[in-house]
Amino acid sequence: VTGGDQRLSRASVARLSLYLRHLEMFGREGIETVSSGQLGDALRITDAQVRKDLACLGSLGQRGIGYPAAELIGALRRKLGIDRHWPTAVVGIGNLARALLRYRGFPQHGFRFVALFDSDAAKVGQRVEGLPVHAPADMPAVIAASGAELGIIAVPSEAAQETADALAAAGIRGLLNFAPVVLRLRRDVNLVSVDLAVQLEQLAFLVHLAGGE
Amino acid sequence: VTGGDQRLSRASVARLSLYLRHLEMFGREGIETVSSGQLGDALRITDAQVRKDLACLGSLGQRGIGYPAAELIGALRRKLGIDRHWPTAVVGIGNLARALLRYRGFPQHGFRFVALFDSDAAKVGQRVEGLPVHAPADMPAVIAASGAELGIIAVPSEAAQETADALAAAGIRGLLNFAPVVLRLRRDVNLVSVDLAVQLEQLAFLVHLAGGE
Repeated sequence: VTGGDQRLSRASVARLSLYLRHLEMFGREGIETVSSGQLGDALRITDAQVRKDLACLGSLGQRGIGYPAAELIGALRRKLGIDRHWPTAVVGIGNLARALLRYRGFPQHGFRFVALFDSDAAKVGQRVEGLPVHAPADMPAVIAASGAELGIIAVPSEAAQETADALAAAGIRGLLNFAPVVLRLRRDVNLVSVDLAVQLEQLAFLVHLAGGE
Repeated sequence: VTGGDQRLSRASVARLSLYLRHLEMFGREGIETVSSGQLGDALRITDAQVRKDLACLGSLGQRGIGYPAAELIGALRRKLGIDRHWPTAVVGIGNLARALLRYRGFPQHGFRFVALFDSDAAKVGQRVEGLPVHAPADMPAVIAASGAELGIIAVPSEAAQETADALAAAGIRGLLNFAPVVLRLRRDVNLVSVDLAVQLEQLAFLVHLAGGE
């Protein structure tokens, strides 16, 4: 790990993902060279910020010409660690998990679902999107056999902490948590939480502000 | 709108939501007074940042004593504009929408689902979580009758822009978009996008970094 990597904030990492998303769209439109201004317009930030963010990728762009889109896509994927496959397990096979399993953005970006778990005995043994649902007790064996490295927690809040502990004990080092609770994790387990109420609150705040104008 | 409000970044607004989430948890544990240090520990940020964020709420805390939790919760809810109900419409009644409709965090924070839409004629007229599914053509009438102010876009990517346009035309001023596409919106429509692949990419990046150590 270089010092440069460690200094990247979560906000910059999120922007790197968004640059990648826009570059892929530009690519589909046949655009081969992209300026920092175009990327800045797309993300509604300054081109100076874009150049600062992309500087961590080394010297790619040419002054006055722009960035070669394909090279920039490759560099972003390498930087983000998604120039490879990430085998991923999902725990809690309800509506959210089914939506995630069908979400095309995941396989498009290297995330491959390899193992499903649910504590409901009625679901264990069923196949969902082509994958069998396993009992939580089988987690260590199934995780090891599947090679899963990331885990998605889609269980109810009250089961989220024990699910996180079980995934960590089974060797998972990265958790994406959708339960609206704060998880306490071992230092060697990384966590990204998606609290959907926080997102909706941000939106309400924007509308609230605009309404006050 | 005061100048202070407009200077709040999206990151600070997200932190205000997270303070609220933690204060509610502290409240359930019977804690009546909370220090900036406790909130900072919970969010893994400095207490100086906490004090800076909470300064926008006016003078609430007492030096050396901390913030009265109940008052701080009230002030945060007023600041975020969630000291009221937000009637919300959902378009695209698939697995994601069903998961959102059952997500307890939304009603707990004032978001009330009042109208559902789907372009699939087989779904129109069905009831999902107690609400009838309407055809998109009925959007203006149903939105007006229901009083919906926010809209959640849970349709496939290729239908997201037309859905956003239809919601805006029907009077919706805030959109929460789950489709992994960039929407172009009228200036008076607010947008928060949740790109789930971006979240998973952030997690992969953290694991990728840790693996390189």
